[in-house]
Amino acid sequence: MKKEAVVGIDLGGTSTKVGLVSEIGEVIAMQRFDTEGRQEFSSFVDRLEAVYNKIITENEGLDIKGVGIGSPNANYFTGQMMNPPNFSWGKRVPLAKDIGDRLSLPVVITNDANAAALSENLYGLGRDLRDFVVLTLGTGLGSGIVVNDKLLLGQDGIAGEMGHVNVRPDGRMCNCGLSGCLETYASVTGIKRTVFKLLADLPMPSKMRSYSYNELTGLMITEAALAGDLIAQGAFTYTGEILGTKLADAVAYLSPQAIILTGGLTKAGDLLLDPTRAAMEERLFHMYRGKVKLMISEVGGEHDAILGAAALAWQEFN
Amino acid sequence: MKKEAVVGIDLGGTSTKVGLVSEIGEVIAMQRFDTEGRQEFSSFVDRLEAVYNKIITENEGLDIKGVGIGSPNANYFTGQMMNPPNFSWGKRVPLAKDIGDRLSLPVVITNDANAAALSENLYGLGRDLRDFVVLTLGTGLGSGIVVNDKLLLGQDGIAGEMGHVNVRPDGRMCNCGLSGCLETYASVTGIKRTVFKLLADLPMPSKMRSYSYNELTGLMITEAALAGDLIAQGAFTYTGEILGTKLADAVAYLSPQAIILTGGLTKAGDLLLDPTRAAMEERLFHMYRGKVKLMISEVGGEHDAILGAAALAWQEFN
Repeated sequence: MKKEAVVGIDLGGTSTKVGLVSEIGEVIAMQRFDTEGRQEFSSFVDRLEAVYNKIITENEGLDIKGVGIGSPNANYFTGQMMNPPNFSWGKRVPLAKDIGDRLSLPVVITNDANAAALSENLYGLGRDLRDFVVLTLGTGLGSGIVVNDKLLLGQDGIAGEMGHVNVRPDGRMCNCGLSGCLETYASVTGIKRTVFKLLADLPMPSKMRSYSYNELTGLMITEAALAGDLIAQGAFTYTGEILGTKLADAVAYLSPQAIILTGGLTKAGDLLLDPTRAAMEERLFHMYRGKVKLMISEVGGEHDAILGAAALAWQEFN
Repeated sequence: MKKEAVVGIDLGGTSTKVGLVSEIGEVIAMQRFDTEGRQEFSSFVDRLEAVYNKIITENEGLDIKGVGIGSPNANYFTGQMMNPPNFSWGKRVPLAKDIGDRLSLPVVITNDANAAALSENLYGLGRDLRDFVVLTLGTGLGSGIVVNDKLLLGQDGIAGEMGHVNVRPDGRMCNCGLSGCLETYASVTGIKRTVFKLLADLPMPSKMRSYSYNELTGLMITEAALAGDLIAQGAFTYTGEILGTKLADAVAYLSPQAIILTGGLTKAGDLLLDPTRAAMEERLFHMYRGKVKLMISEVGGEHDAILGAAALAWQEFN
């Protein structure tokens, strides 16, 4: 009998990764190419097909069950990317249909945060959990919610946009047009904004004063905080307090067993986790206190998003 | 063949209603008695058994499948009421076990808001919906969340405590010990507090100035608002703005098809619905705009809570 595998695709704004993944989450092979989202969508499909043919030829003898794709603004139900920012592919990109036709395989898609949640559910900290929430704290804030071992999709496949819950009505302006969205505080971009707010509010010296907004990265803030920089440390405390308060809300809706954090901001480890957990516990309704685990993902690494997309394909086509 | 029925019990702080309910939601018979939650739990079980025997004798020839109970702080998984306020029955009341033993029937329990959600799902506006949220706006604020036609229970049967999501960290003090909980604004008690805040903030004459806090009822506020009282109208606007903002958050988590409001405060109809809907739409993440119905329950009436409890029993024992 041929070995079974699925294709996991992580379609990002900059690069796209294509992997062959077994059911136990072994990445048999992986290739990467530039997405070039500003060129035509058909050109992307051409290049994807070429990479797929190459990887399949190099790894012959597999029984490919189907394709899972994680991408920004992907809608599970329609198979389309809806108004993806940073792409010139139109308002409704027929991702599942066009790629499925070209590769002659069934295709299922979901947004990157949902893919991360599935990845945790099959291969990560969610393996033994039934109800949990995954937050991706990167450039923005994405979330994937697992209820009773299934992804919560909602009416149209786009449930779990915790990046846009409201922290305060008169809060920071968000790219989405609203004010006070959680992702303007709890994300790599959010903590950069917080550093600049604290540089304005507070008088103490800080290494943070020597970088422009464009130069500053999340990693710089983490390293400065670890080295004792008060502004950088204050930025993590501020971020954790806001994130923890909103996680307490998430628990009041969903009563999950655990909340798993992933993405660039989590490289700070306990610097982020400690103030977040303290604020969450302080704000939790009494019935939930001490019951919800707050953890940083261990899946990580460059295969993370591919595994999530593959997990979706395994769930769908097995 | 005997006609099938279940027992639906609405166990409230003041009175308890016991109903026999058919699968299509017909209330075959109903009896009410005083709960007397300050007496011993065993005395309550005695009186419940007596009422049950009476109602069964008066309606003989039924095939009773089981018992569903909706009550404050009831936990579906444990079958217990946990720390119920206004009752002297202990910290963990073995509701399902003791009543099941006495009536020799299987018993399932849930909190009142979840029962209301099930009632909508089987007999109300949720009949044709798969994903929706029910808010009970009474003395407090309860919520029941339906995902994929099933009640969202979470890790321990107590998901859906939207009354305690945070409106603002420095907000009104709540009975639960937290500050800024949604139910301190969006409930009958919440709108009373808002009337008193507006009486303090604003100078205009108002009928509301002639009542003490203890005298004032939700109905008085509604009637005054309908008669053009500016303070009472302002209280509904204020309530709707806060409720709508938090409903937008609920949508970002759950992407429901509809949000159904029920309970005393909804007697105000459009006075409540219009500002709530406007605030919700304004705060919705763009992908959700114009897609979520906001409605007032039509189940209502004195059978509402019994129907919800019965719906749970039908779901469980059919």
